[in-house]
Parts: sequence; structure tokens; C-alpha cells
Amino acid sequence: MFKNIRIILIKTTEAGNIGATARAMKNMALEELYLVQPQNFPSSVATARASGADDILANATVVDNINDALVGVNLIIGSSARQRQRKILQLDVVQSCEKIKQTINQNNKVAIMFGTESSGLTNSELDLAHILMTIPGNSKYFSLNLAQAVQVFAYQNFITNYNSAFDNENNLADFSTVEDFYQHLFQTIEKIDYTDTKRPQQLIERRLRRIFNKAMLQNDEVAILRGILTKINKYEK
Amino acid sequence: MFKNIRIILIKTTEAGNIGATARAMKNMALEELYLVQPQNFPSSVATARASGADDILANATVVDNINDALVGVNLIIGSSARQRQRKILQLDVVQSCEKIKQTINQNNKVAIMFGTESSGLTNSELDLAHILMTIPGNSKYFSLNLAQAVQVFAYQNFITNYNSAFDNENNLADFSTVEDFYQHLFQTIEKIDYTDTKRPQQLIERRLRRIFNKAMLQNDEVAILRGILTKINKYEK
Repeated sequence: MFKNIRIILIKTTEAGNIGATARAMKNMALEELYLVQPQNFPSSVATARASGADDILANATVVDNINDALVGVNLIIGSSARQRQRKILQLDVVQSCEKIKQTINQNNKVAIMFGTESSGLTNSELDLAHILMTIPGNSKYFSLNLAQAVQVFAYQNFITNYNSAFDNENNLADFSTVEDFYQHLFQTIEKIDYTDTKRPQQLIERRLRRIFNKAMLQNDEVAILRGILTKINKYEK
Repeated sequence: MFKNIRIILIKTTEAGNIGATARAMKNMALEELYLVQPQNFPSSVATARASGADDILANATVVDNINDALVGVNLIIGSSARQRQRKILQLDVVQSCEKIKQTINQNNKVAIMFGTESSGLTNSELDLAHILMTIPGNSKYFSLNLAQAVQVFAYQNFITNYNSAFDNENNLADFSTVEDFYQHLFQTIEKIDYTDTKRPQQLIERRLRRIFNKAMLQNDEVAILRGILTKINKYEK
């Protein structure tokens, strides 16, 4: 889906992280993976961790240096665990994904670079980037591993381009349907002698309205409730 | 930080997932973990995967059934890999986190339930929930594992409550500083005889303005550029 977004892993040491990255990518509709000098690739460990996303691994491009991974790329983003004292535009992952969205809409290619596990991107790798992207989190403990960082980025990128479209069934019962139910309910309350001077009918009615209004009743739910009331009304005192 | 948010893992089979969940939680400032009938806990595998978030594991509460994990909880959210044909409010993780934000602001406790790895929440567990939360993703391949799902939720929850505050140094050079630089630059261009009838000075000036305006120059950058111009101007033809 996001054909103009490339993930670049640089000098990754753990094969498992490459596999988990592929899985994280595919879950969020990213496809293009470049590996710069991976220490262990291909690897059965990577394939196992990819868990069905092994097509991403099979199609991954392995290159010898970062410049070869950036050929044809228009916007280059470096991922970092922390802000750095560098003269580069620093954006969090939400802002970065907004920028990516604008960029790919203009049919430009975007690459996101992730450095080696132990130390992240080197300064010279970061010098290639237009944007330094960080992931916000707990300032007292921040230890996202490589694949988790890719997961968070990939999710945020998906969300930024996604329009929520849930089909919460909104066949809410209309006013008169609900009002008929209320009258049925109030008559029942009166009939069962629930109310008295301490609990006046009017107050109880107001409370009941509030309760069922919060429930935002649907037609079939009103039907159930009215069925119950009908049952109750059949009983004589 | 998020003292009113509880993560509940139900019948988790893989100890590694419990550890990775703790790490995901702590990275995003979540603290409270409940485990309902974990198959393998405590476990050295969990502790290893927690990677410094072992305090979350040490403080985790292990209980025998889901009801014990929900004591004192006001808003109950069930996490699911997919939408379900059920009469329950279904929200994506972004919307769910908005709802959580409103709820904890009123000092209510929120719990998010994650079901067993193989099959997720059972219907009876889901019946306890006010909201069914799903994570958007690739409709053709969706295979987030348990800890990845917790990671995405924890990140989204953090982001929803987080105000980005980057100190991108915004000491942009002011108009007259930049304008002085432009005049310096244009004089230099003229002096070096770069322009001619095919490349008229006026056009080149306009192009150069565009280039440097996009760069949004800062004061120290203007100083560097003017230093270069000064150097160039010292040379005689």
C-alpha cells in the first residue's frame, strides 16, 4: 500500500530483529525493506520471527553502504531514540508521519533509517537526513528495541493515512419509539407501587430517562425491554 | 505516570510475551499489570525479555479469574485483533485512547484486557467490556502478536496524553539579516560574472532567494554563508 515508503535497517546485528521488523511492516502495509550490511541475513531466525511476512524478507534489498540504500529517495528521515544536539529538524513520530504523508502524496519516495541496535545512527548517517525522528515515551526509562521502534513508526504511519470507518450499528431507536417505551416503563413503575412520597414518581421518571438515554437504545433493545415490561404487567398484585 | 490505567493479560501462554509487555508498558509510562492465570509466571524468560522493566513484573498482580482483575475498575476495554459481530461499542485504538483520557481525567480507573495468544478474548470476557478496541492495520495481513499489540496501545495512549514540545532551535534569522545576506550574495554573483543574457541577473536572484528561503536560515548559518561570500569577494578576476 505504501509503495513510496522504504524502511532501511543499517548494520543490524540480531537476525530476529530483521524478522520482527518485516512482521511489523507487513501488519501496517509497508513493503519495501533495505538492509545495509546486515550481520546475519538471510537467516532462519529472521524467517521464523517474520511469521508470514517472509515475502518482505525475500524481497529485501541488501546493500553495502547507506548511499546505495538511498538512491531515488527524496525525503530522508533518521530514527533516533533521543533528541540530539544537532542542527537538524527534529520531529516526533506523529509530526514525521504527517510530513511523510504530504511527501508521498506528491509521489516522492521517503526512506526511514534505523541504526544498529547498540548505538543507533552514526553522526555521518544522520548527516544524510532531512529530519531526525524520535518516539515520545517515558523519560525515565526509554528502551524500545529496534523492532518495537519500527512497529510504532509503522503503526503511526498507518494511522496518519487511515480514516476510521467503523460500522458501529447506529440504528438508534427514534424519539417516539423511545418515548413509547418510557411511557410503558413509567406506567409499569406506577403499577408496581415502586414510588412513594420519598421516591416521587416524577423524580424516578427523570432518573430512568437519564439512565436509558445514556444507553442510547437501539430498536431491538427497546423491543427486549418492552417485552420485559409486558411480562411484568401481566402479573397482578 | 498513568496510575489509573491497568493492563490485564488473560491466560497468557508465552512467558516471553509477559516480559515484552512489561517492557512495552514501561517505555510508555504504564505501570500496573494484572495477570489472569498466566501459564508460566514468574519465569526467567519473562524477566529477560522485560529488559530493565522487571519492576513491572515484580509488582504484577496474579489472579485466578478476570473478575478479580477488574475490582475497582470503572471503564473496561477489551482488545481484539478484529471487529466482531457483537453489540458493543467498537472503537479503534486512537478513539479508545481519547476515551481513556477523558475517563482518567475524572479519576476513574481504566483496564484494558488482552486475551490469550491463540484466540484472544472469549465472548464471556468481552461481555464484561464497555468498549471493544481494535488496532487498524493491513487488511490483507494482520498478525500483531500480543506484546506488539500492547506496544501499539501503550504508545498511542502516551501520544494521546502528550504535548509535543521539541526545542527545534527557532532562532531564524530576521528579515534584514537575510536581506543583507541576499544583497551580499547578489553583488558577489554579479562580480564573478555568472549572469549573462541567457541567465539574467534578475532571474538568478529570484531563484537564489527561493532556494535560501526554503532553507529557513538561522543566524549562525547566515554568518557562515557571509563568511564564504567575503572570502570569494577577496579574489580578483
